[in-house]
Amino acid sequence: MLSPVQVGSEARRDRLLDEWVVIASHRQDRTFLPANDQCPLCPSTDTMLTEIPAPEYEVVVFENRFPTLPATLDGQSTAAGRCEVICFSQDHGASFADLTTDQAATVMAAWLDRSAELGGLPGVEQVYCFENRGQEIGVTLAHPHGQIYAYPYVTPRTSRMLRANAGHRQATGRNLFDDVLAAERDQACRVVLDGEQWTAFVPYAARWPYEVHVYPHRRVPDLAALSEAARAEFSVLYLDLLRRFDRLFGGPAPYIAAWHQAPVRQGRDQFALHLELFTVQRAPGRLKYLAGSESGMGAFANDVTPEAAALRLRELAC
Amino acid sequence: MLSPVQVGSEARRDRLLDEWVVIASHRQDRTFLPANDQCPLCPSTDTMLTEIPAPEYEVVVFENRFPTLPATLDGQSTAAGRCEVICFSQDHGASFADLTTDQAATVMAAWLDRSAELGGLPGVEQVYCFENRGQEIGVTLAHPHGQIYAYPYVTPRTSRMLRANAGHRQATGRNLFDDVLAAERDQACRVVLDGEQWTAFVPYAARWPYEVHVYPHRRVPDLAALSEAARAEFSVLYLDLLRRFDRLFGGPAPYIAAWHQAPVRQGRDQFALHLELFTVQRAPGRLKYLAGSESGMGAFANDVTPEAAALRLRELAC
Repeated sequence: MLSPVQVGSEARRDRLLDEWVVIASHRQDRTFLPANDQCPLCPSTDTMLTEIPAPEYEVVVFENRFPTLPATLDGQSTAAGRCEVICFSQDHGASFADLTTDQAATVMAAWLDRSAELGGLPGVEQVYCFENRGQEIGVTLAHPHGQIYAYPYVTPRTSRMLRANAGHRQATGRNLFDDVLAAERDQACRVVLDGEQWTAFVPYAARWPYEVHVYPHRRVPDLAALSEAARAEFSVLYLDLLRRFDRLFGGPAPYIAAWHQAPVRQGRDQFALHLELFTVQRAPGRLKYLAGSESGMGAFANDVTPEAAALRLRELAC
Repeated sequence: MLSPVQVGSEARRDRLLDEWVVIASHRQDRTFLPANDQCPLCPSTDTMLTEIPAPEYEVVVFENRFPTLPATLDGQSTAAGRCEVICFSQDHGASFADLTTDQAATVMAAWLDRSAELGGLPGVEQVYCFENRGQEIGVTLAHPHGQIYAYPYVTPRTSRMLRANAGHRQATGRNLFDDVLAAERDQACRVVLDGEQWTAFVPYAARWPYEVHVYPHRRVPDLAALSEAARAEFSVLYLDLLRRFDRLFGGPAPYIAAWHQAPVRQGRDQFALHLELFTVQRAPGRLKYLAGSESGMGAFANDVTPEAAALRLRELAC
């Protein structure tokens, strides 16, 4: 028997950093690494009712029973965050990298549809599709799945990108995302995959041991604005990239895959849709931790040079 | 036989976020959880030469053999970061919370002296004294120790605080740190320890399950500017706080303790020295991970309300 969706979280303004923080105390009791036969993301059976009331499925999206995002901002009940779960496969032991190109394209269509739907809800300022993979980064359900957050505010990192972009535009008249992508393609030493529609590269100032940014060549604000050709090529390129991540350390690398889309109402003519994929693993059995410098000061140090990371990822072709 | 200090890292500008990132590839081979009888932070013996060529010590500071901070900024060799290790105790199995008040005062004197010394070096923009405690956050040497980083740039988090403070000053004519401290003392519901010279409170928008900020009542830019009375009271209050953290979950909680000091050359008349202490543990055996929302978007969610955290920490008095 499944209990109803719980709410009650709130966003609070950290005035010293000028950022929102969500306080979500009801989540302490959320489902934590259930046994395989208790998985809430597997299809339902005659004897087990899961989150998915169907005997089989390809891609399913539903509202998270333990949502992170808040109903109120600083006590005023004007905001409505939404958290959804997106299941990529009915196969409990699969991962995104195991999907066929067609299946990956179906997931992409779901990201696109849900982004458009959630972005149209009152109070939603930004929609974020992402996947956490691996217990090393705190994943509490092993079944392959991603999440879609609809924030009632523009997130801190997106705000910073918009601010840096505005400064660059004022100084040069050009778009910063365009200039960064052009510089990476021109230098080429950090490019991992070079498609007709997309380029995947390790950024010059990567924060994580293996970090790849994937940009469409034609700048668009969000998934909905991609051309058919760009959508088609992405699935092929992304599966290739994920399979390289799986071969980095002999076993599946924990990773975070993050779709950066323009906010719903701000900076849409300047923001560049892109995906950031990174692993917290730096060597077999060794993780990159965010300790005093990163967590205390926001000052990242990366032990793997971006050029070496790109070289290694290029070599990992099937 | 100890090899000489290795260098070769560089800081690179992340243009999209307008932040420095350090690339420190030589650190992949650093000392990792050595056996107790190989500890480089224990006193030297007749048969074992450690980092500390003395048979006993109280507090020792030396340069980190595997420094994180860079010799160059974006390829220009103008910067000189420095990383030092500060050992709090010769007792391998001790922790900061085990120190006497006098010993803690000696550590504080060392923080102060090293901050002044490093802040005077050419190219140093900010000095940061901190402690990482616990393998859960990636500590690779069990012996109780902290670190002192001298950054050749103002760190991202400090920059953000200075920016928010400038905005508040422009809007209200007041100092934001003063207003935040006054509000916390006034509301009192998140105050953990209330001294004559210092107040320790869980901030209104805490990011971590148990997070305490410790401010002197008289705003000063850095450790060197503290009064004798403030220095004396801090040691007592801080040891009390650390011992409460040790009782939170039955065993020693992993924590990060971070001294926020004003940069060497910027914002000194507005910045407020304070300490931020937090644990990544949210319950026995459960850690708070930075996954997709935090690492991807900088959007934190905290599962413990700041008021509940403060209540619990108040109740943990000896």
